[in-house]
Amino acid sequence: MTESGKPILYSYFRSSCSWRVRIALALKSIDYETVPVNLVKDGGQQFSEEFQALNPMKQVPALKIDGITIGQSLAIIEYLEETRPTPRLLPLDPKKRCLVRMISDLIASGIQPLQNLSVLQQMGQENRLTWAQKVINSGFNALEQVLQNTAGKYCVGDEVSMADLCLVPQVANAERYKVDLTPYPTIRHINKSLLALEAFQVSHPCRQPDTPPELRA
Amino acid sequence: MTESGKPILYSYFRSSCSWRVRIALALKSIDYETVPVNLVKDGGQQFSEEFQALNPMKQVPALKIDGITIGQSLAIIEYLEETRPTPRLLPLDPKKRCLVRMISDLIASGIQPLQNLSVLQQMGQENRLTWAQKVINSGFNALEQVLQNTAGKYCVGDEVSMADLCLVPQVANAERYKVDLTPYPTIRHINKSLLALEAFQVSHPCRQPDTPPELRA
Repeated sequence: MTESGKPILYSYFRSSCSWRVRIALALKSIDYETVPVNLVKDGGQQFSEEFQALNPMKQVPALKIDGITIGQSLAIIEYLEETRPTPRLLPLDPKKRCLVRMISDLIASGIQPLQNLSVLQQMGQENRLTWAQKVINSGFNALEQVLQNTAGKYCVGDEVSMADLCLVPQVANAERYKVDLTPYPTIRHINKSLLALEAFQVSHPCRQPDTPPELRA
Repeated sequence: MTESGKPILYSYFRSSCSWRVRIALALKSIDYETVPVNLVKDGGQQFSEEFQALNPMKQVPALKIDGITIGQSLAIIEYLEETRPTPRLLPLDPKKRCLVRMISDLIASGIQPLQNLSVLQQMGQENRLTWAQKVINSGFNALEQVLQNTAGKYCVGDEVSMADLCLVPQVANAERYKVDLTPYPTIRHINKSLLALEAFQVSHPCRQPDTPPELRA
């Protein structure tokens, strides 16, 4: 917390995992301060001793709130959900909650880590794009099939849920890696509906305190 | 469910994510049937049309229970926790629950996917072991630091939690990839305590219906 008592979000404008948490904070109208951590400058500010003491995982996002510092975006969102339940990001019905978590994990464990910077750097410059496209396509094939059974207006029914907070940043990554989204009509449709919501707009990478001027919109 | 009404776990003896769920089922005394899915035989049985119709993610574990089929190990465990709460795998206190989820996600999103077969296959035979060791060491460095603040007898305090269900299978992977565990005394200590519990033993890869005879113990 800051002296004013506000939570502090350690964030990088382009980090898709940070974006997930920014959406949650926006939806729940939680006022917070951003401390930018530049993942590429100075060899990666997340590796600094200072940041590492705060978050041994050397990753963003991290959230300082209620006297604790939390890492891992989904753990942060679940904590916010349990302590600030309105509006809810998990449905009441256990089976629907399960679908929300399944879709969230499909993205957070099954896609995002495999196209993360640390893996891409191992692939060699010429294979990087191909690899990123391959893992995103593989994940989106599964996701599209799942969503055809679960989606209403959003990923699970007609209420915005944690799954939606994972979907939009992952689609942005896909676009960045030039993945052809034509085979994924359900994903595209949901993504478009979500991007029309204010919480997804104010949290967008192009509108953060650390967004470089040339990427602002 | 089978005709007898038992849940069905689609599992592979060596899959660390399947093991997580097997521990949960054992701890909660949920009787189930195993349908083995061999991830290497026949080019990977998870890619069969039949299995894909069941789980579009083409991964184990998947659990058929209460009329639905669920993928993603942590989503499965959270569902079991919400519908079969005894004994609990998440503490009551929201901050402690958050620590449990953070540690679980650190392993499930931050380590396991990066040393998964699909990634290793991209690394080339000669780099495979080095890469697996690198990502596990990097994750365990963070995990060791986190656990020094959260652990009692187990990962978070003295109660077995979802985090422990992630820890033990990940340590087994580390041993398989010949990671030197000397720098991680807290991880080693917790792992040893957990392996003494019956639920971790009956769910062990060396004691599954699909364990090859030469790996049985």
